[in-house]
Amino acid sequence: MSNKLVYLFSEGNGSMRNLLGGKGANLAEMTNLGLPVPQGFTITTEACNAYFDGGEKISDELKEQVFEYVTKLEEMTGKKFGNLENPLLVSVRSGARASMPGMMDTILNLGINDEVAEALAKLTGNERFAYDSYRRFVQMYSDVVMGVSKSEFEKHIDKVKEEKGVKLDSELDVDDLKRLVSEFKTIYKEALNKDFPSEPREQLLNAIEAVFRSWMNDRAIYYRRMNDIPSAWGTAVNVQEMVFGNMGDESGTGVAFTRNPATGENKIYGEYLLNAQGEDVVAGVRTPKHIEELEKDMPEVYEQFVAICKKLEDRFHNMQDLEYTIERRKLYILQTRNGKRTAQAALKIAVDLYEEGMISKDEALMQVEPKQLSSLLHPTFDVDELKAAAPIAKGLPASPGAATGQIVFNQETASAWSKDGKKVILVRLETSAEDIEGMHVSEGILTARGGMTSHAAVVARGMGTTCVAGCGEIVFHGEEEFVLGGKTYREGDWISLDGDTGNVYDGQIKTVPAQISGNFAKFMTWADERRRMGVMINGDTAADAKQGIEFGAGGIGLVRTEHMFFEKKRIRAIREMILAKTTEERKVALEKVKPLHRENFEEIFKVTKELPVTIRYLDPPLHEFLPKTLETQQEIADDLGVDVQVIQDKVSTLHEQNPMMGHRGCRLDISYPEIAVMQTEAIIEAAINVKKECGYDVHVELMVPLVNIKKEFEFIYNIMKETAEKVIAEKGVEVSYKIGTCMETPRSCLVAGEIAEKSTFFSFGTNDLTQLSFGFSRDDAGKFLQYYYDRQILEFDPFQRMDTEGVGELVEIGIQRGRSVRPDLKVGICGEHSADPTTIVFLDKVGFNYVSCSPFLVPIARLACAQATIINDAEK
Amino acid sequence: MSNKLVYLFSEGNGSMRNLLGGKGANLAEMTNLGLPVPQGFTITTEACNAYFDGGEKISDELKEQVFEYVTKLEEMTGKKFGNLENPLLVSVRSGARASMPGMMDTILNLGINDEVAEALAKLTGNERFAYDSYRRFVQMYSDVVMGVSKSEFEKHIDKVKEEKGVKLDSELDVDDLKRLVSEFKTIYKEALNKDFPSEPREQLLNAIEAVFRSWMNDRAIYYRRMNDIPSAWGTAVNVQEMVFGNMGDESGTGVAFTRNPATGENKIYGEYLLNAQGEDVVAGVRTPKHIEELEKDMPEVYEQFVAICKKLEDRFHNMQDLEYTIERRKLYILQTRNGKRTAQAALKIAVDLYEEGMISKDEALMQVEPKQLSSLLHPTFDVDELKAAAPIAKGLPASPGAATGQIVFNQETASAWSKDGKKVILVRLETSAEDIEGMHVSEGILTARGGMTSHAAVVARGMGTTCVAGCGEIVFHGEEEFVLGGKTYREGDWISLDGDTGNVYDGQIKTVPAQISGNFAKFMTWADERRRMGVMINGDTAADAKQGIEFGAGGIGLVRTEHMFFEKKRIRAIREMILAKTTEERKVALEKVKPLHRENFEEIFKVTKELPVTIRYLDPPLHEFLPKTLETQQEIADDLGVDVQVIQDKVSTLHEQNPMMGHRGCRLDISYPEIAVMQTEAIIEAAINVKKECGYDVHVELMVPLVNIKKEFEFIYNIMKETAEKVIAEKGVEVSYKIGTCMETPRSCLVAGEIAEKSTFFSFGTNDLTQLSFGFSRDDAGKFLQYYYDRQILEFDPFQRMDTEGVGELVEIGIQRGRSVRPDLKVGICGEHSADPTTIVFLDKVGFNYVSCSPFLVPIARLACAQATIINDAEK
Repeated sequence: MSNKLVYLFSEGNGSMRNLLGGKGANLAEMTNLGLPVPQGFTITTEACNAYFDGGEKISDELKEQVFEYVTKLEEMTGKKFGNLENPLLVSVRSGARASMPGMMDTILNLGINDEVAEALAKLTGNERFAYDSYRRFVQMYSDVVMGVSKSEFEKHIDKVKEEKGVKLDSELDVDDLKRLVSEFKTIYKEALNKDFPSEPREQLLNAIEAVFRSWMNDRAIYYRRMNDIPSAWGTAVNVQEMVFGNMGDESGTGVAFTRNPATGENKIYGEYLLNAQGEDVVAGVRTPKHIEELEKDMPEVYEQFVAICKKLEDRFHNMQDLEYTIERRKLYILQTRNGKRTAQAALKIAVDLYEEGMISKDEALMQVEPKQLSSLLHPTFDVDELKAAAPIAKGLPASPGAATGQIVFNQETASAWSKDGKKVILVRLETSAEDIEGMHVSEGILTARGGMTSHAAVVARGMGTTCVAGCGEIVFHGEEEFVLGGKTYREGDWISLDGDTGNVYDGQIKTVPAQISGNFAKFMTWADERRRMGVMINGDTAADAKQGIEFGAGGIGLVRTEHMFFEKKRIRAIREMILAKTTEERKVALEKVKPLHRENFEEIFKVTKELPVTIRYLDPPLHEFLPKTLETQQEIADDLGVDVQVIQDKVSTLHEQNPMMGHRGCRLDISYPEIAVMQTEAIIEAAINVKKECGYDVHVELMVPLVNIKKEFEFIYNIMKETAEKVIAEKGVEVSYKIGTCMETPRSCLVAGEIAEKSTFFSFGTNDLTQLSFGFSRDDAGKFLQYYYDRQILEFDPFQRMDTEGVGELVEIGIQRGRSVRPDLKVGICGEHSADPTTIVFLDKVGFNYVSCSPFLVPIARLACAQATIINDAEK
Repeated sequence: MSNKLVYLFSEGNGSMRNLLGGKGANLAEMTNLGLPVPQGFTITTEACNAYFDGGEKISDELKEQVFEYVTKLEEMTGKKFGNLENPLLVSVRSGARASMPGMMDTILNLGINDEVAEALAKLTGNERFAYDSYRRFVQMYSDVVMGVSKSEFEKHIDKVKEEKGVKLDSELDVDDLKRLVSEFKTIYKEALNKDFPSEPREQLLNAIEAVFRSWMNDRAIYYRRMNDIPSAWGTAVNVQEMVFGNMGDESGTGVAFTRNPATGENKIYGEYLLNAQGEDVVAGVRTPKHIEELEKDMPEVYEQFVAICKKLEDRFHNMQDLEYTIERRKLYILQTRNGKRTAQAALKIAVDLYEEGMISKDEALMQVEPKQLSSLLHPTFDVDELKAAAPIAKGLPASPGAATGQIVFNQETASAWSKDGKKVILVRLETSAEDIEGMHVSEGILTARGGMTSHAAVVARGMGTTCVAGCGEIVFHGEEEFVLGGKTYREGDWISLDGDTGNVYDGQIKTVPAQISGNFAKFMTWADERRRMGVMINGDTAADAKQGIEFGAGGIGLVRTEHMFFEKKRIRAIREMILAKTTEERKVALEKVKPLHRENFEEIFKVTKELPVTIRYLDPPLHEFLPKTLETQQEIADDLGVDVQVIQDKVSTLHEQNPMMGHRGCRLDISYPEIAVMQTEAIIEAAINVKKECGYDVHVELMVPLVNIKKEFEFIYNIMKETAEKVIAEKGVEVSYKIGTCMETPRSCLVAGEIAEKSTFFSFGTNDLTQLSFGFSRDDAGKFLQYYYDRQILEFDPFQRMDTEGVGELVEIGIQRGRSVRPDLKVGICGEHSADPTTIVFLDKVGFNYVSCSPFLVPIARLACAQATIINDAEK
């Protein structure tokens, strides 16, 4: 069976995006609309996949079809490859299903050779145009197709310009260009030991192969990973008749957006350059003109262009990004696609298009990229100051926003300086739970180690604080000095962090607060009407709760009670508890913690009122509460009135090889049930007090972490229930509470049916579940996952986007077995995945009731949940 | 519906063990055989479970049925509770499905009170007997049923004896005994604030409840965990008419085995005591007589006894352990059960019974406890010297055998001293891979930290070296001194370890080498004929291979190649490889490793010849190869000619929070494919060399560790295959090799179908799979699992016996999905579970092809595999 691997633009249509790529499908659609599109054909994404499956060789089948379509194109255009009367030149461009601007390769003017150049010069009466085109082709082909370094050619151009004493390429004359063509061919021959190919069909096949290959170049792989594009999609290749913007001053080329991509304003926004080819616009050699000037330059062309913009928006129901060329006053549209835009513009365009009656609310909701919204919620750098700054290093963009401040290395200085009104940036090898206070008062956090889900990253996102993590170039000298970009930084030096890009800058850069336009609120209401899943927050303080509720959260899905224990007064009592030698001593210490703990909950409940609050019981291994340095150990020993050896012995006893899989989670309650008793008393008493004081009917959900075994859960369930009932009976005030499980281990998913006998809700802790399913420590995986991406073994970070195949199957098993026992089981997620849009589509599909994420991610999750509903409903 | 909760002995039979317990079923069976059994009834195990399910209360239903059966028993015996003409006394004894000797409680002489005692005295004409029985009952009831401490009573007896100036209980006269009864009742009243109960029915119900409760006492829980007995089985309670061995010198009581339990000799072996009750035999107050003396004392009784022994063996097809009482020259059998025996005896009895035609080979195979065989394979302490020694501490019995030697604290001293011919015991806080050489030369290993699957334990079992691990009582002072049992130990001090019990002894105790009797070989042949699964070894040296093959292994199921890297010459090159800054430097260092590595394999292949050898590629994180102490780091820096800072920086770079889930396993090959290339070359070249030199057609199976993702396996598969083919082509010699996967992560099991597309075998690494399924770090879990056992959340150590519910389901999923793609997929296990008999039954059932364990466990696994086949065939 022979496959159809090539389509004329006129054979396709806009719905064939998977096969023809975005560019190819849109070219076909524009052809069907009768727009002035230079004709051509598209080689399908399937041909690309076949190319890679077949050991990176162009098959005979493909070759045959390509040549067949070349002939068709020759017939359609009346031009011919290599024909000196009317030579056919083409562009060869990539075009994947999803737009990947600039990631892959393009070759223009293909088909040219010595004879054709000469003929072109005669035919157009424009010798300079002909040799400019030729020079460009030789350069582009050598670079893109054959991998001869661009800089070789640039050097020659510079030499020629120097010899002539001119500055611009456009000042080179025909002889210069001819000389360059000849010299370029020599470079080619020296580099590759063969002549530059003059046969257009040979040029074409090689160019097609080069575009295929560019699908697997490093930047394309990186872009795909960042944008969740599977490598299995492949790219199509578009072969299109060249039209020339470089035929003189009645020719030109440009790009335009049908609406303003920065603000969303409904007004064409674009630029063009006369006597130029596409690459010149991008290269910024000359300053382009604003599209509105075209109205003066060539009014009839401008008018036609405006009409086309309208037609395209009507057809695609979205703001378009166009490439066009004017060849001797005739307008050609080279491609159209949905335009990239700022979050602010995206919201305005979506709302406007709906209000213009062009799209439905569902379509509007689908037009905004959820992750974009984060830029509306954090401060950003002043654009002008940023332009002047060059990054000194790049780390992971762990928590968005822009931050500038003076370097501090520890939380004491951070606290002291911030009290003095200084802006500080906390710089650490890595952070731990002890650093929380310091992180709280910092503008931003910079770490040398750790990935996107390291402690610093997770906590910073939770706080909405800018963070650049895992900046491996930092070399610490001791604890109070580091070298970066060749400069030594000490306490008090200024540094700036861009949490959206991971860039680190020397010195101070002005930041500007976020501006939220009125469309934002309107749009989010639409999202809320549409979404099926609830959106909760992970938060541990009244401030978190307030922020989350402002951002539209429906309650708290995860209170990490350990975060309440790090505050000074509390941690002293917690340390006494850890050092206790007997159950009785432990109870005495816990009695000191209880009133403070209760106070934390009272503060939260006063904000959350009657919204549900899911409280996870003490989770981390106890050694996290003890200090690591001798100095701090001595301080604590003095404070508690014990010998420092006592502290050190305890640290040593609690030391674990793999603390992630150690004495933590509900294992603490199994060992020391008095902890669960204390926490339950504090929570229920707080709920009762708030009910009495404010009249709110507080809804608490008590969550047991790291459950594995039915009996393990039941043991703690019984303690919680007995304690809660005792408090309720004593106080004589009813409190609404549920008891449930955090599902974090593979085993918990397998025995979910047994656990659900008593557990009324499951909250999937997919961070730990991912760690355990893969055996990837998220603190350490950063070191080797890069190799996985480089080798395309993984196409995404499984800590950021859920691995639906492995981890997802465990989650599905857990839900299915849980609901088979308890049909009304409430199911949520509290891991880092819970604001990832791709993951959210999966969660909605398998029946989650809610997601729970950092307060600053709530708007993203709300929109992603709405989109998930739309996507999954469409699949039904 | 009313349940039958009570059975007369005559209503049951030997097959009703689950319902009536072992003792009850056997009493029924003996009754049916017409043997002289005092009559009575059994309260079922279901009644016990109902007792616990119902909140630890005797139900009205049970009470009614018990009283009904008391009436029946009264009718059968003609005696009555509380009747002064012919009073009924009974014993109340536990009896679980599996024998748990001494773990639960017994009450004798129940039914006695002031009036009955007086009547008994008159009826028997033996006043002393009557009050002796009464005294015993009050004491036993107070202790067992009501929890009044035994020592209170003992103190009173001692006081009375002292006042009289006598030493033995038997020297007390009737008045003394009466006085004691009265004083005991006072103690009872003072302790419990109520009178001692005189009503036999009240006594009976309380006694039954006490036996039920004893099912959950600490020592019963511990015994069940050690012997894999589920708590859900419950215990039955046997109420049996008392017969009296304490009615004078024509009465007596004793225990006997139908064959010798130490040697297996076919000759009755037992003891008896005249004028005594059962407890006296156990308490060792007087020295009992040997059973053969009974022939002289009471020849007709002896003759009857011998006939009964024969009858019981004929019926139960096994050596029996009997309790009997002679009341005034009349013989009663109180219970019979299969007798506990030494491994040596077990083998002889099984072989003899088969050869006597009494049992089939299958039955013979089922009669020997596989774990018992280990005592035949290791040295043991000299029995007499051991009797004189008292343990100073108890750790975990991590690796069996007996060892005595001088304390050393590091591997340098261990090696030096052992070269001087000294016997050394390596004592460490915990061991790590660096200690391997030191462990190799030691007689035994003692660690303060770590569980049954800690590094020390696993490696020691692999080596067959005695090890006591996790001896928490050890307090280290610095690295060269520790305190244990109040004594300070330093280098050179003598210490002895019992790896079968975990006991640690001060000083030197003589050891004796193991003696393997001729029945052993015969018996193992039967096992081999019957078993379905292959038995391979985990071993890394030619010596391991030799030992394993001697013990009957069919090849090597797991070569841990990293173990080859710790030897001096090799580790230097490995360290160079780790410190390499570029791929080229790494390749240079690997080239140095290769010939040494190849040599290791050549040595192994010369021993394994044509048996399959499964080789796991480098698995541990690289930091394990770098030293931790500054001193050693300096040494290595000097050796490699680099600054010590370079080593320290590398150690710091390689540091991981959770190394178990870090940069290890196939992740190393993904990062540094040159490692896989080197290992493949070394293996294939070695196979070719051995084929050329010795003519063996070596069979290697190359195993990729810690696989998670299809593409990950394929990446390494391609490297292995290309490298192997290249070597084979270069050398022109064919080698038979397979490429497969170590399945160690939950995700690997879920995607097993994809992995099996290329993988021809799976070896389940159930240690890691257990760690990851539960999120239990096996290095750390010891700290909290004790709480799980105490609270009966776990009834066994999931690192020793596979959790078939969770981990087992993942394994089953893995096999099923793997075989759905590749029906002939070979499936094995290389984790610590692979010699656990309970696990082996599961493995056989779900279709494993082989197990792979330490050489010293091979005979155990062979027998367990045979038993698994028998058990699973019977279920079909």
